Amino acid sequence: MLICLNTMTENVYIGSKPVINYVTALVTALQREPKVNVMARGRAISSAVDVVEVCKRSFLKDIQIEDILIGTEQMGDGDDLRNVSTIQIVLNKDA
Amino acid sequence: MLICLNTMTENVYIGSKPVINYVTALVTALQREPKVNVMARGRAISSAVDVVEVCKRSFLKDIQIEDILIGTEQMGDGDDLRNVSTIQIVLNKDA
Repeated sequence: MLICLNTMTENVYIGSKPVINYVTALVTALQREPKVNVMARGRAISSAVDVVEVCKRSFLKDIQIEDILIGTEQMGDGDDLRNVSTIQIVLNKDA
Repeated sequence: MLICLNTMTENVYIGSKPVINYVTALVTALQREPKVNVMARGRAISSAVDVVEVCKRSFLKDIQIEDILIGTEQMGDGDDLRNVSTIQIVLNKDA
């Protein structure tokens, strides 16, 4: 039997669309769950920070940044194998 | 009399040069001081994460990420006033 202990956390993945698209996704995610992870890889890491800062500044002034984790993921295979940096920004509405 | 309490911390500012340039700057800074802040603004935030990850993976495997702070700075003035996201990654060799 598989028990999911993580029902209270939602992930918002940041890509190359305009920042405001992800801000609305993040605001709605925080309305559903108290804890949301903002995840990004490579060039989108800067946008992830923008999304969180815009959200904090303009929409949800009381959200707390609980943790920020950085790491590396291997992408591609063979000759195309490369390391890509990642970021995970853990936001908490209730903290 | 001005007493500087912060002699053990050095800052490495990340810009738009190749990542490896900042990796060497960071490695030499960590040889001088046990604690180094990696600072970046805007698009360079992704590079700052790259610099720390390359440094951890290839050069100084025992450095600890003590803290990661994100924020917003106002840049320019008048019509050119805009908000820019910032990151500060606090590294510690001794932790």
